[in-house]
Amino acid sequence: MRLNETELKRFDEDGYLFFPGKFTPAEAAMLKREAETVYATDRKEVWRESSGVARTAFAAHTYNEGFRRLGAHPRLIEPVRQLLGGEVYMHQYKVNAKAAFDGDVWQWHQDYGTWKRDDEMPEPRAMNIAVFLDDVTAANGPLLFIPGSHKAGVVAAGHDLATTSYPLWTLDRATVTELAERGGCVAPTGPAGSMLMFSSLLVHASPPNISPFGRTIVYLSLCEVENHIRAFRREPWIAHRDFTPITPLADDCLDELVAGQAVAAE
Amino acid sequence: MRLNETELKRFDEDGYLFFPGKFTPAEAAMLKREAETVYATDRKEVWRESSGVARTAFAAHTYNEGFRRLGAHPRLIEPVRQLLGGEVYMHQYKVNAKAAFDGDVWQWHQDYGTWKRDDEMPEPRAMNIAVFLDDVTAANGPLLFIPGSHKAGVVAAGHDLATTSYPLWTLDRATVTELAERGGCVAPTGPAGSMLMFSSLLVHASPPNISPFGRTIVYLSLCEVENHIRAFRREPWIAHRDFTPITPLADDCLDELVAGQAVAAE
Repeated sequence: MRLNETELKRFDEDGYLFFPGKFTPAEAAMLKREAETVYATDRKEVWRESSGVARTAFAAHTYNEGFRRLGAHPRLIEPVRQLLGGEVYMHQYKVNAKAAFDGDVWQWHQDYGTWKRDDEMPEPRAMNIAVFLDDVTAANGPLLFIPGSHKAGVVAAGHDLATTSYPLWTLDRATVTELAERGGCVAPTGPAGSMLMFSSLLVHASPPNISPFGRTIVYLSLCEVENHIRAFRREPWIAHRDFTPITPLADDCLDELVAGQAVAAE
Repeated sequence: MRLNETELKRFDEDGYLFFPGKFTPAEAAMLKREAETVYATDRKEVWRESSGVARTAFAAHTYNEGFRRLGAHPRLIEPVRQLLGGEVYMHQYKVNAKAAFDGDVWQWHQDYGTWKRDDEMPEPRAMNIAVFLDDVTAANGPLLFIPGSHKAGVVAAGHDLATTSYPLWTLDRATVTELAERGGCVAPTGPAGSMLMFSSLLVHASPPNISPFGRTIVYLSLCEVENHIRAFRREPWIAHRDFTPITPLADDCLDELVAGQAVAAE
């Protein structure tokens, strides 16, 4: 589960690492079904696009067993602990839908920009680690990264309250262009079950999904425990206030749920 | 220049063929500079996004020497003549910009749907052949195809006058979903100079370009001469009325212009 020297060097240079197929198709399919169940519920943690379809479900690890286990999965927790050099707690947990036809844009931004401005997280000792629950292709609104942009530190941003249903601190075009002239712009694509980890300072975005296929991704935002947030302006199910270190479960922690669904389907 | 048996079989099954790097980087770069020149002119053939940046330049082969030569290039004309089984004329010629940040969506549609309804083109004996003038990637709004959808014939469509600055006969979501469940959804990506040919019945779309890089593609819509349009409701620089068969130029017809720009740059 530990990152090797090559991976550590690449993370330092690019600000992200991509592991296609890190979770099995069965694990990804089980979590996809759980996501559908969550989206179908009417609860405050499920944020919707202006069209009404689900955009993101917050804090699903607090009310869904599959996502609870994923939130302590060693394939996710251990490499992040290694990179951040300490215990981690769950700062934010999102299951982003990017629904077929309706999934809207996420504008260019840095996650730490929001965590610093809204939540007063002291340092960028926090990062994202994501699992694809659908195949992510060039066609269904993949995540876009500007490699190396994490080295720019916290860049200026404006609070965009208008573009989508979700408020976001976003970067202006001149800044994005300048960073992309140095680092380019990439879209990691791969099968359901792929894992993607990226610096909380990495500049990223994703386009609308106009394709007929959904594109669900789970994001854990993990923060080193002593670097916990100081301000509590956002809802506790968006910016969590439980700073308990996460104890990783066993690597086969999803197997029981996969088997349970397989039985139910017979 | 002729398509082989494998290519003909693949075109029949999928409705498109993709040839990465069919034109040289120098040829593509010369045409990209010509596109910038065209977009910078204030003329009726240059259609703009609601933001004001260029969306498409129509009929550039009639007022630009580079695009005039490309419009009779043997790498484009000959395979289309082979597939359509006769002489061809230029029904439409578009240089589509899909500008960085501003390039807007093209909704799901079949080109022949518009040519039949608006222009009374008798049969789908017409097709598109395109040349990438920029690298097309997962990040900058690639063209999306539903392979095999050309076999569905002309499918029902509604006239969308609202979504973008350009009116288009577009397909509903149920139809797109049903076709994609059979054929999937692909995004041919490749370097500047790549060539893409596709049936006028192939269902396609392209998402907005939110990346900091432009994505210019030239589209020739070629029609078999006896299948020329019967109605003249659209502007003659959008749906052409000159049905003269195109005589292909020599394969090196762009070299002189490439050399000329190279000299000018020294």
